[in-house]
Amino acid sequence: MRIVLAPDSFKGSLDAPAVCDALARGLARGLPDAQVLARPMADGGEGTLDAILRVAGERHRAKVSGAAGDALDACYGLVDRPEGRTAIVEVAQVVGITDPAGMRADVSQRSTRGLGELVALLLDAGVRRFMVGLGGSSTNDGGSGLIAALGARLFDAGGAPVAATPAGLARIAHVDVSRLDPRLASCDFAIMSDVNNPLTGAMGASAIFGPQKGVRPDEISAFDASLARFAALAESAFGRCVADKPGAGAAGGLGFAFQLLGSSVRSGAEVVAELTGLDAALDGADWAITGEGRSDRQTLLSKAPFIVASHARARGVPVTLVSGAVDADALPELGRHFDGCFALPNGPMTLEACIANAAALLEVRGTQIGRLAAVWNNRRARP
Amino acid sequence: MRIVLAPDSFKGSLDAPAVCDALARGLARGLPDAQVLARPMADGGEGTLDAILRVAGERHRAKVSGAAGDALDACYGLVDRPEGRTAIVEVAQVVGITDPAGMRADVSQRSTRGLGELVALLLDAGVRRFMVGLGGSSTNDGGSGLIAALGARLFDAGGAPVAATPAGLARIAHVDVSRLDPRLASCDFAIMSDVNNPLTGAMGASAIFGPQKGVRPDEISAFDASLARFAALAESAFGRCVADKPGAGAAGGLGFAFQLLGSSVRSGAEVVAELTGLDAALDGADWAITGEGRSDRQTLLSKAPFIVASHARARGVPVTLVSGAVDADALPELGRHFDGCFALPNGPMTLEACIANAAALLEVRGTQIGRLAAVWNNRRARP
Repeated sequence: MRIVLAPDSFKGSLDAPAVCDALARGLARGLPDAQVLARPMADGGEGTLDAILRVAGERHRAKVSGAAGDALDACYGLVDRPEGRTAIVEVAQVVGITDPAGMRADVSQRSTRGLGELVALLLDAGVRRFMVGLGGSSTNDGGSGLIAALGARLFDAGGAPVAATPAGLARIAHVDVSRLDPRLASCDFAIMSDVNNPLTGAMGASAIFGPQKGVRPDEISAFDASLARFAALAESAFGRCVADKPGAGAAGGLGFAFQLLGSSVRSGAEVVAELTGLDAALDGADWAITGEGRSDRQTLLSKAPFIVASHARARGVPVTLVSGAVDADALPELGRHFDGCFALPNGPMTLEACIANAAALLEVRGTQIGRLAAVWNNRRARP
Repeated sequence: MRIVLAPDSFKGSLDAPAVCDALARGLARGLPDAQVLARPMADGGEGTLDAILRVAGERHRAKVSGAAGDALDACYGLVDRPEGRTAIVEVAQVVGITDPAGMRADVSQRSTRGLGELVALLLDAGVRRFMVGLGGSSTNDGGSGLIAALGARLFDAGGAPVAATPAGLARIAHVDVSRLDPRLASCDFAIMSDVNNPLTGAMGASAIFGPQKGVRPDEISAFDASLARFAALAESAFGRCVADKPGAGAAGGLGFAFQLLGSSVRSGAEVVAELTGLDAALDGADWAITGEGRSDRQTLLSKAPFIVASHARARGVPVTLVSGAVDADALPELGRHFDGCFALPNGPMTLEACIANAAALLEVRGTQIGRLAAVWNNRRARP
């Protein structure tokens, strides 16, 4: 019996590789003879790099600027693909919202320059293919830092340079791309995002994601106006209109800037599935198990477990959901996509206890669904 | 696919037939083509009568005395068995600890006379076989009420009659069985109990079960001494020494009194399984599901789910446990006896929410384990 484990992380408790490990330990007791393949999933946000590197590629580090301009060691991955060497860049590794140094600076002073520095270093190393996981950023600079670090220049009305930060963009009057790194023309960028927001407006980066980064309610319209000014100038300079494209508002506008550079937008979960070889693992498998911290109707909007279910079902592989919690109201719908939906608790339990004991609970759940599966699997094996 | 549902009640939320109904509703969605047989279980305590009557026999009512001497309508069952018409008597129906009228009287004034009245009525109706579910009683009279209502007479040292209550037993000096109902000699009594306590002493009825019935800590030794006096006199009169037998201390000593009448002691769960035809249902079944409010190491001490598992496994039928909560520490041991152990919660949840939503949660659990089972069952069906 071959089982593919392809869970997302359980946010706040376990990353996806740890979820795989706990399920595998449990299944080893419930189905001792099963062959278990771990293909951890992610959606392009925090944890994407770790999920991919568990299965494919190598981990590297580079010294680049954090959101506040401080030097940091950022992890990235390099994967050899048929189409060429591909860098896996996770925005949260450079300007992560969980990075205390970056968060100490006011959001108006934070910049994505470090992302541009990382891309430049990789260009120097000969890399031309980039898969960029957006999500988990602390910045709201429209990705101006990214393009500035790659040679674009930002000026105010008097011709003086302005910083690639929200504060700088408030005074921006001109974007010059004449010195943009020419190697970018031969690059292939793909951003991974599950955020469809445009760059500006009521559903834009500042209004929707600004507050969690420290933008005060009364500042939102000023941040939004700065991004709109920057977008108009940058679109004109690059000759591309992308501010209204889905995902332009991801990662404080990094989605916009990468699309200025010609990036495609892809489902993070689909990219991860491709890089980890999920389909090859599923071919001929008997069972797939996926999951996430909490499953509800959102799960069916292309979250990682839903992508795994689609891939598994396309190959005739039954797929079971094991999540920290499963929303009762969504169960009838979830039930149509999964061969059994299970939650972590053994009994009445607080959220805190559930999070603190997630690994042990997952192990138990793995054993118990494995034991149930063993019954029918053993029967099948009988003459 | 044939599935046998044989859960105990979920104490505090659902009786066993309701547990069967909820699981059946869920399974109907997860395994629409399955044939589902409900064989609700019980352990001889409260709910035993309802569990048996769901499958076998007829419900009847009789006017007898409650614990406080008040008149009440007590339910009992009559089942036609190959060995003869058998009465199913549940002690809790007559002197139940949840009966407010009985509980209003001081425990020293409560009596089991009503049980003797019920037995006498059944003797009049020609019944000679009795299965008596102990458990859930409010009395601590050593079963003196039972034998008094059947003709035994209790006297004090002066030859005056004393009441068949703890207060009466405090003055007892003589037990006369010369007028005991002669029909008892041709009766077959079996008491159902999962309590192994003797009648008196540190592990006796007064010390262990007295406090929950209202015996104050400083009264325990007096209650215990009264039972010991009564036991010595009654044993001498009946010519049977049973006070130290396992189960003599069940139901405030009714276990003693029934054994004075020659009763055997049987596992409540085994009797219920026999009366509901559990084995016949399991023969040729594909799957059994059992459960209870909370499963822990106690479950493996002959609780109903353990009995169901033993019967199922003896017939090669896989058996899954679905309980309100499953004790994490006991899971390794429980796991050896069940093909998968599952709890009710969909996610973090309080005990109160779990109890209040037990039926809906059970239905969901039934659907989800059914969906998982369907995968392997469908595969088996394939060529």
